[in-house]
Amino acid sequence: MPAYATNMRTKFPIIALILEIITIILFAVFVVYDDGEHGHHDSHDTHNNTDHKLEPMDLYPMFQDVHVMIFIGFGFLMTFLKRYGFSSVGINLLLAAFGLQWGLLMQGIWHLDGGKIKVSILKIINADFSTATVLISFGAVLGKTSPVQLLIMTILEITIFSVNEHLVVGLMKASDVGASMVIHAYGAYFGLAVARVLYRPGLRNGHENDGSVYHSDMFAMIGTIFLWMFWPSFNSAIAEPPLSYTQLTAVINTYLSLATCVLSAYAISSLVEHKGKLDMVHIQNATLAGGVAVGTCADMSIGPFGAMLIGFVAGIISTVGFKYLSPILASNLGIQDTCGVHNLHGLPGILGGLAGIVASPHALKISPHATMQAAALGSSLGFALVGGTITGLIMKLPFWGQPPDQNCFDDSIYWEVPNEEEENEESLAHGDQSKHKADV
Amino acid sequence: MPAYATNMRTKFPIIALILEIITIILFAVFVVYDDGEHGHHDSHDTHNNTDHKLEPMDLYPMFQDVHVMIFIGFGFLMTFLKRYGFSSVGINLLLAAFGLQWGLLMQGIWHLDGGKIKVSILKIINADFSTATVLISFGAVLGKTSPVQLLIMTILEITIFSVNEHLVVGLMKASDVGASMVIHAYGAYFGLAVARVLYRPGLRNGHENDGSVYHSDMFAMIGTIFLWMFWPSFNSAIAEPPLSYTQLTAVINTYLSLATCVLSAYAISSLVEHKGKLDMVHIQNATLAGGVAVGTCADMSIGPFGAMLIGFVAGIISTVGFKYLSPILASNLGIQDTCGVHNLHGLPGILGGLAGIVASPHALKISPHATMQAAALGSSLGFALVGGTITGLIMKLPFWGQPPDQNCFDDSIYWEVPNEEEENEESLAHGDQSKHKADV
Amino acid sequence: MPAYATNMRTKFPIIALILEIITIILFAVFVVYDDGEHGHHDSHDTHNNTDHKLEPMDLYPMFQDVHVMIFIGFGFLMTFLKRYGFSSVGINLLLAAFGLQWGLLMQGIWHLDGGKIKVSILKIINADFSTATVLISFGAVLGKTSPVQLLIMTILEITIFSVNEHLVVGLMKASDVGASMVIHAYGAYFGLAVARVLYRPGLRNGHENDGSVYHSDMFAMIGTIFLWMFWPSFNSAIAEPPLSYTQLTAVINTYLSLATCVLSAYAISSLVEHKGKLDMVHIQNATLAGGVAVGTCADMSIGPFGAMLIGFVAGIISTVGFKYLSPILASNLGIQDTCGVHNLHGLPGILGGLAGIVASPHALKISPHATMQAAALGSSLGFALVGGTITGLIMKLPFWGQPPDQNCFDDSIYWEVPNEEEENEESLAHGDQSKHKADV
Repeated sequence: MPAYATNMRTKFPIIALILEIITIILFAVFVVYDDGEHGHHDSHDTHNNTDHKLEPMDLYPMFQDVHVMIFIGFGFLMTFLKRYGFSSVGINLLLAAFGLQWGLLMQGIWHLDGGKIKVSILKIINADFSTATVLISFGAVLGKTSPVQLLIMTILEITIFSVNEHLVVGLMKASDVGASMVIHAYGAYFGLAVARVLYRPGLRNGHENDGSVYHSDMFAMIGTIFLWMFWPSFNSAIAEPPLSYTQLTAVINTYLSLATCVLSAYAISSLVEHKGKLDMVHIQNATLAGGVAVGTCADMSIGPFGAMLIGFVAGIISTVGFKYLSPILASNLGIQDTCGVHNLHGLPGILGGLAGIVASPHALKISPHATMQAAALGSSLGFALVGGTITGLIMKLPFWGQPPDQNCFDDSIYWEVPNEEEENEESLAHGDQSKHKADV
Repeated sequence: MPAYATNMRTKFPIIALILEIITIILFAVFVVYDDGEHGHHDSHDTHNNTDHKLEPMDLYPMFQDVHVMIFIGFGFLMTFLKRYGFSSVGINLLLAAFGLQWGLLMQGIWHLDGGKIKVSILKIINADFSTATVLISFGAVLGKTSPVQLLIMTILEITIFSVNEHLVVGLMKASDVGASMVIHAYGAYFGLAVARVLYRPGLRNGHENDGSVYHSDMFAMIGTIFLWMFWPSFNSAIAEPPLSYTQLTAVINTYLSLATCVLSAYAISSLVEHKGKLDMVHIQNATLAGGVAVGTCADMSIGPFGAMLIGFVAGIISTVGFKYLSPILASNLGIQDTCGVHNLHGLPGILGGLAGIVASPHALKISPHATMQAAALGSSLGFALVGGTITGLIMKLPFWGQPPDQNCFDDSIYWEVPNEEEENEESLAHGDQSKHKADV
Repeated sequence: MPAYATNMRTKFPIIALILEIITIILFAVFVVYDDGEHGHHDSHDTHNNTDHKLEPMDLYPMFQDVHVMIFIGFGFLMTFLKRYGFSSVGINLLLAAFGLQWGLLMQGIWHLDGGKIKVSILKIINADFSTATVLISFGAVLGKTSPVQLLIMTILEITIFSVNEHLVVGLMKASDVGASMVIHAYGAYFGLAVARVLYRPGLRNGHENDGSVYHSDMFAMIGTIFLWMFWPSFNSAIAEPPLSYTQLTAVINTYLSLATCVLSAYAISSLVEHKGKLDMVHIQNATLAGGVAVGTCADMSIGPFGAMLIGFVAGIISTVGFKYLSPILASNLGIQDTCGVHNLHGLPGILGGLAGIVASPHALKISPHATMQAAALGSSLGFALVGGTITGLIMKLPFWGQPPDQNCFDDSIYWEVPNEEEENEESLAHGDQSKHKADV
């Protein structure tokens, strides 16, 4: 067992400050405001050949919906653990705040305009998207990694993501408007690869803090519901041409897929659980699988019926995955997937990619080639597995402050935590005197 | 006392899956995307005779506000019960997700276009609206019904709602932009009729879980505040013509009515409570009565002053209703209204209907007839009471898994619940070993 | 020690009802709907000389973002105290609901149009803004003041705010689009002046309830994240001309400043805290300082790089302020700042004002004069300190129901609170019988 150095007093501040200063310098060199005068190189940014000229702020409400998904949605979804809420929502904020800056740079270098990255609402939507990959992977290693390790993962994962995205969308011309492949499948398998490398035999038999309490499950539902509600925005925000029926199609498909998915997830949860009871883990996660799975073909003319079928199947495979597949992954393959991202993002992401291959003739704009859709899925999975493994190996280096097994899933290793637990015990025994913060 | 069969393992999954599969088939037959080419039969969908041509996505931000009210607002508002948070927010999600699909069908059949229901943003706003009736009624029977019973209620209540709505808005040409009558009064009295039929003598003297704890009241405030903030969107979303001063009027009236209602609700809460203290039940609910009551005449030119008067009165009658009327309904009429929907939706809904009769000459568009406004109110109440009674009788059939009295208001009958309670006791007594989920 | 009369049964209802009735009468006399036909006196309301004619509802999504910041953001941010959540979110609702009415009147009288205040979306955004000053000051005196005292503060603070705002923006023509000076610095120093006047020697050594527990810190993060996400809307909502690149610039600058601020706040929190741990107080507050500090020059062409520098510095000074300055203010100057508004709004507000002086040549519209920017900062601070002192003296009068020291930071003095604490103890000892509300 390695010696652990989890005191972050020097390590974390130095790394965070250096990263931020480098980022600011890169912004000073490369980033300017969008002024509406483009060189027309980026098909995502200009839509002048349509009836609907995009005004600078037209996509702003969509951006805010996506923003809520990233910071409230992902942040609170992960607060289900009983003693890891500070880290879930707090480190989520840290990673996303850094990730969006890094994502702006990494995505921007593929679309330079006069040597500059011109920041528009569309660009910051895409920057938010790039952070989603990291937050998905974060779910796989939640509770078992230090903030420093996670900052390293953020840089590497977003960098690799932007390469894969450029390859898939820019070069292969594959269609993936809701990013089932380039975000969800990529983020999930990247995170699973990292989790595999960071496998902890000491947690084979579980950990007392690796579970929820009543209130932490309630906090997690805040994340679930906000993700569920705003997913139509996620899947339609970058649909082209904006403000048109293509975007409407993406909204309707996602809305219906999600609604259907809720019914199948609830039904299967009750079917597979003890005495027919519902399991919060399924409700918090599998109800969202419909949003993931309909992503690739959200803007295709698959019909309301087609979208509902996708959602129906997604809810089933996600719930079944949680019940039967996750335990096998953990015990047989050494993949300890804290949040079950394989079931929420991995399997439904692959389902979405497959649906996109089948549905590609129904695309409303230039029809993507089914072969290219398949190649896009393969590329996303390949980059994820290779990139995640390499990233995991780097994260495994012994000086990043990784927590020892016994301190996993516990905020108090990286956070000042109010000492209510001791208070409660003491207050019952001796009254109520001890009120200062714990120096754990 | 009947034998209870609350094990949902076969019943719930089978019913949920069958309902969803039937719904998907109906969607396959009837539902297509809106393509902008209408037969112009539906005055809610086309506004081409105005200066403001509605773009496909123009109402999308409004839709998302309404969506948040349905899923976060109603869901968390009901989490005030100490041991019923999973059901409140979780079953709310289930019913609304199914209800919006059913509502799309039921409302759509009155507005077929070439034999098809064309889904637009306006249509999904109306579908969300239709679920609100169910969620209001859910509040009346919260804690005392099974998921299967509630799915049945969802189907019947939305079906009857769509008949009444078509009668009131389509045929009588009554005005009810914010749906004080067709949603709030209807949903409340429908739920009260169901609650009356399902009367439980065993709960006459209360139930230990029929109350809040500190944190559950905090969760409920999330629901309250989101409902309060986005109510102007609820009342203006379908105002005609969209994007014009009519919609602005509906926003301003609702904003001011709600603000005024807060002051009167707080004042009366303090006035009627022990030692002048504020009561969370009033704050969570009566502060919203202004949104309900101004609904019918939100788009009428009643003046900011008129809107404020309505809100002021609504806050008073709602708070007084909670304090003095609810106990009488429970003890004398056998109506056990868990959330007090009579005070939040029932009385203010009637107030809204009456205000609409008085204000009808001030409508900005074609002036509705005061007699028709009165008929609309009567129709909504009639459909609610008759429909609710019939629905209640069907729900009372003994094979829907209704919980026995002693398991009311308790998540653990239908949910896997983390066993923190036992943990706490044990951890104090013996350390902290038992960590697995309870098999209650 | 004065005799305290904290029973609100007559005092609070009478004052609240009288204030509301007076307000309704003033609305009846002065306030009408905006009908689009202006006398063109108010440069904030008319933008007809631009390409982008503002439709009545164009700013509505921005308004809703600001609305969420006011009611969820500020409300939940203050729920971090262990036994003061009802008051934090509940009194926040009360003050904001009254404040927005009063703000509409006070701001409106400077922009009468035919003797009337014409309510538009822009006007209700500004009304929401005016309440922000009160909610900031509320943070300084949180837990130590009665609802009646706070209603009085609301009236006086908004009245004085509207005078200063008219002076600064209307007469000096200073630029302060995100209101670093006229809202944040003003609100903070106003609140600190009130806190100074209301100094409580009895709380010098702290109070057992003046701190957080685990769940209250989680609730507070809901407020933090919503404020953080929607701050770009706050800083761009009234940028001119709307819907143009000026508004985009304000969004981008705020987005980047906030993202950068997160990194520096986390780094410094870890650097200054025991064993390098993160402190929730810093995370909940200092991560927002970037939004405050970039406010004045958000719509200026400071470059993405400039915005990030401002955010970076703001995160540092805010965290350092919490760690080192707040204890000094409390012990040496007698300023007991419950929420640390000096560090979140005061110092970053001044930083914003200073940045505005430096950046004023980069304004996109008519360039404001650097001298006027400096005068605007001075005016805001002056009005705050003088206004706050006078207001504090009025609030100190002994008949407003101010709580005694021992009941500070405790909801149960003004609220009916469920008696779970006693329950827990009893349930451990004797089972679980006592379930009724506490009559504390």
